[in-house]
This record gives sequence, C-alpha cells and structure tokens, in this order.
Amino acid sequence: MKNKCSLLLSLLILAFQAIGQQTTQEKLGYSKDTKLLIIHADDLGVSHSEDSASIYALENGYVTSGSLMVPCPWFSEIAAYGSRHPDADLGIHLTLTSEWKYYKWDAVAARDKTGSLLNSKGFFYDDLDSLGKMAKPDEIEKELRSQIEKAKEAGIHLTHLDSHMGSCFFNKDFLKIYLKLAREYKLPSLLNVNAFKVIYHVDISDLITNKDVLTDNVFMAFPPNDKAQHEAYYTNMLNTLQPGLNCVLIHLAYNDAEMQAITLDHPDYGAAWRQADLDFFSSDRCKQLLVSNKIHLITWKEIKDKLMQ
Amino acid sequence: MKNKCSLLLSLLILAFQAIGQQTTQEKLGYSKDTKLLIIHADDLGVSHSEDSASIYALENGYVTSGSLMVPCPWFSEIAAYGSRHPDADLGIHLTLTSEWKYYKWDAVAARDKTGSLLNSKGFFYDDLDSLGKMAKPDEIEKELRSQIEKAKEAGIHLTHLDSHMGSCFFNKDFLKIYLKLAREYKLPSLLNVNAFKVIYHVDISDLITNKDVLTDNVFMAFPPNDKAQHEAYYTNMLNTLQPGLNCVLIHLAYNDAEMQAITLDHPDYGAAWRQADLDFFSSDRCKQLLVSNKIHLITWKEIKDKLMQ
Repeated sequence: MKNKCSLLLSLLILAFQAIGQQTTQEKLGYSKDTKLLIIHADDLGVSHSEDSASIYALENGYVTSGSLMVPCPWFSEIAAYGSRHPDADLGIHLTLTSEWKYYKWDAVAARDKTGSLLNSKGFFYDDLDSLGKMAKPDEIEKELRSQIEKAKEAGIHLTHLDSHMGSCFFNKDFLKIYLKLAREYKLPSLLNVNAFKVIYHVDISDLITNKDVLTDNVFMAFPPNDKAQHEAYYTNMLNTLQPGLNCVLIHLAYNDAEMQAITLDHPDYGAAWRQADLDFFSSDRCKQLLVSNKIHLITWKEIKDKLMQ
Repeated sequence: MKNKCSLLLSLLILAFQAIGQQTTQEKLGYSKDTKLLIIHADDLGVSHSEDSASIYALENGYVTSGSLMVPCPWFSEIAAYGSRHPDADLGIHLTLTSEWKYYKWDAVAARDKTGSLLNSKGFFYDDLDSLGKMAKPDEIEKELRSQIEKAKEAGIHLTHLDSHMGSCFFNKDFLKIYLKLAREYKLPSLLNVNAFKVIYHVDISDLITNKDVLTDNVFMAFPPNDKAQHEAYYTNMLNTLQPGLNCVLIHLAYNDAEMQAITLDHPDYGAAWRQADLDFFSSDRCKQLLVSNKIHLITWKEIKDKLMQ
C-alpha cells in the first residue's frame, strides 16, 4: 500500500512538473506556437476623450481589453459603461500618481488614512520618485483595496489588474501589495520578469509562484513618437511577435481640446501620441498585420476564467 | 455739556440714517441714477471648456467677474490663472452639490468630517433637496471654509463669494454660514432679498446688517432657452435695467465634446445653453446695448475695496 502511494505521489509530482513546464499558451489550451496578444488600452476614466476613444475601440474590436483609473474625474462614465457591458474586458489601472499639470485627483480611501500618498495640495504626487520616497506601504494597500472595492461596487466585472505609470512596480514592497491583491481577488495581473528588471530595476522572480500568470512580452511605443514612428514601431512589433502571451499597452484618446489641455506642458504621452495609437490600431493596416502574422487576440477575461478559478 | 453731547449724538444718528438711506451706487461714489452691472461668469473650474471660455471672456472684457468651484477637476487650471492674474475679478462659487451624471466631485475637507454632505458613492449629492435633508450645518461650515482656504493657498486674490446652485441659500441655517464666512473674510457676497424669497423661499431680511452689500437685481436666463430666446431675454434685461447694483449670472463654455459629455442627460444648463451665453455677451449687439443704455460695468473687487475694508 505504501509503495502504491509513493508511486502515485511520484506520478502526481511528474504530472505537476509537466504542467509547470507548459507554456502559458498551452495552459490556456492553445498550441505552443500560438502568438497570443492582448491589445490593451490604459487610462480609461481619466477624461471623456480617453473614455470615448477607448469605448469606440473596444466596441469595434480594435482593442481586446482596457483598464480604468478609479480616482479620476471620469471614472463614473467608464464605470457606467462597464456595468452595462459585463462582457467588456475591463480591469483596474491601479493609480497612485496624478501626473498632469492642471488636472488632478487624489485618494479614494479616507484622506486621513492615505496622507503619505498625497502632496501638500492634497493630490497624489506627480512622479514616481516622490511616491517611492514618501508612501507608506500600509497606506498604499488601503488605497488600492479601496479602488478595487469602489470599481466592484460600481458594477464593473473586473478581469485583471495593472498599474498606472508602473507605480506598483516601483519597489518590492509595493509589488508585494500588488501581488497580494491580485491573488486575493483572483485576478490575473500584468507581470513580466524582464520588463520589470529593465524598466523598474526590480527583480520579481522570487515573488512569483506557478499560480501567477506571467506575460511573456510587454510592448509600448514609448514617446517621443510621431504618427510615422508609431506605425513603424507597431508594424515591426506585429511582424516579429513571438509565440507566447504578449501584451501591447496603448493609450487611446482624441487629439482634442480636453486632452490637449490635460497634457499641457508635459513633453510626453500627449494628445497627439494618443490619437496616433488610435489611428494605428483602428487601421486596416493593423488588421492585415494581425491576420498575416497569424496573431490570436485574447482577453484578460479568458485568462482569468481558464487559469484563475 | 450734557445738552451738547445729546445734540452731537442726534446729529450723528441723523448722519448715519442719511448714510443708511444711500443707495449702493451712491455708497460706491456714483450718482443715484447710475445703472451698475456685474456681468458674472459662474462655474469656473468645472471643466476645461468652461475655464477657457470664461478666461477668453474675462480677457476681452465680455464679463467683469467670475467665480470658481474649488472641489472640481479643473480647479488647478483656473487657480493657476488667478494667481498669475491678480487683477482678474475672481470669487468662490461655494459648492455643495455635484449635479452631473458621470462627472463627479466631492468634499475638499476631510471626508470623515463631511460625511453628511456625501452620498453612498462618496460624492456630493446631485440635488438641493438631498443636501438640505442630510447636511449638518457644522460640516457645511467646515467644507466651505476649506474651499476658501484652498483657493487662498492657491494664490487667488478673492474678491467675493457666491453659491453654486444656490445651495447656501437653501435655508436659514445654511445662509447664516454663508453670511458668517463672507463677513469673516471681508468679502462681498451675492445677496438679494427678493430673489432669495422668490426662488429659495427664504427671507433673509432679518439677517442683513447695513454692512452687507445687497445686490438690487439678479438676472439669469433660466433654461430652457435657445440662442434666440437668450438674445431676447438679455436684450430686454439691458434695455430695462434700473439704476442700482445689478448682477447677471451667466455660464460660459464651448458647445464641445467635453461639455456635451458633462451635461449628458441633464435637460437644462447644457453645453449649447452655455455657448449661447458666450455668443451673446461677446457680441457687438451686447456692447451696443451696454452703451446705448448707459450701463456702467463694475467688478466685485471695486465693491470689496470701497465698501468692505
């Protein structure tokens, strides 16, 4: 009997190891050579311009997914959309910074419990360095939990978490909170070992378990980029996309008065940059590249339903 | 000696009575038959559309004055303008409501000290009735004081107070706070005995002292009004304006995507209504009517400087 149990245990371990060696695309039921791509719109809720461009792209299939910023002025608009469209693939763009010159927001949780996250004017800090220097981890957790709860209360069917300006990836203490919340709410979250090492100088490999879903490659057309550069960057990205779970982070808005005023005096990430994203991903050229490169679009919801239950 | 004192006292009383009988325009150094008019833009800070239209009107002399909403998303934009333009006639549009469907704001003071002003979603109430029913006067005072202090800290040279949606005129308890703050900060405030009686059913006459500046007539083109109705209303108003201190409350914004989205599903006070205000007050027709009716434009700053020191 003892021998039988040992054999069974060994087989189970081998089976788990084999599963452990599976690629994410295989875990999701696709062949190993499948190029999966999430086309992800960030910053929903920040402005009406961003909301309307992102909703247009979601409804026309130009993006698969988006994530929204709960503390921002137009949260109620995108929350109402999310509650009316339970199949829209929406997550939370966890927000700890307020980076624009004249258009500001602050904490969702009680301000007397999030004081370390706020500047002297009562708004979130403009930049990651100030946040990293001043923020107390327990106040970050309180605030991020409040953002998730507020989105759920608004009736949004959350599919994932990610982080505005990567503030949750700033250091390991912040990252642990991000992982804790993702696991607790059973939501996949944007995680990429290499990108975090290169951009945020933080090695997350020892924090990851085999229950976490890793994104193999994360892409973003970092500014400055004009429309022609955008098209060249994304064309190359799609033509050279590798098998695995890939995610491209884009930012959709119209190059209109509202978005121009929000991004005033901010050299990067402006209204024209957002319009260029919209122009490329809504183009026939993009559609053709997705087809010719046999890229399979996937939502965070599919990942959540298949791997996080 | 006693008789001399009595005589002096009687003369002083008579002199004070004579001053008391002076019209506001006389107190300000104008003749009794002067038609003074404040052309006042409400709602600055609510949106970029409202800010840019109002600044355009202030800089071109189409309005004399404006008041800003401290809790709103674009407060920092108009505050920066105010601090850079100390001569711009800006007051505070004290705000206790958040009336739009998908575009919300809440208290400036700590939320745990203003709980009676906030709905279940953490925003100000949409309507005056809910505010009137739920708000605790001490929390109103805390919030309004915080709005004034935040505006002062932002470097705005405040010239007056008034009240968004007339929430401070809703009942006598609220009105007493409004008067208390105006007197404490030595700011003139929008006060009109008849209008308050007719619109808000509150009789303020027993609360007024001779130190308070009363506006003789307050005008506003209440919706629904299209452009032609606007023009007819204002033309008649200017042609029949009476001597005294008059104030017309207007709301300037562009009929653009941002303002249309803000005022969504709100039958009145929409983007077109605001554009119509801008169109009339920036027109040659308006300019001609002001000249032909010998209307003298005045700012709240002049009133503050002459009567509130």
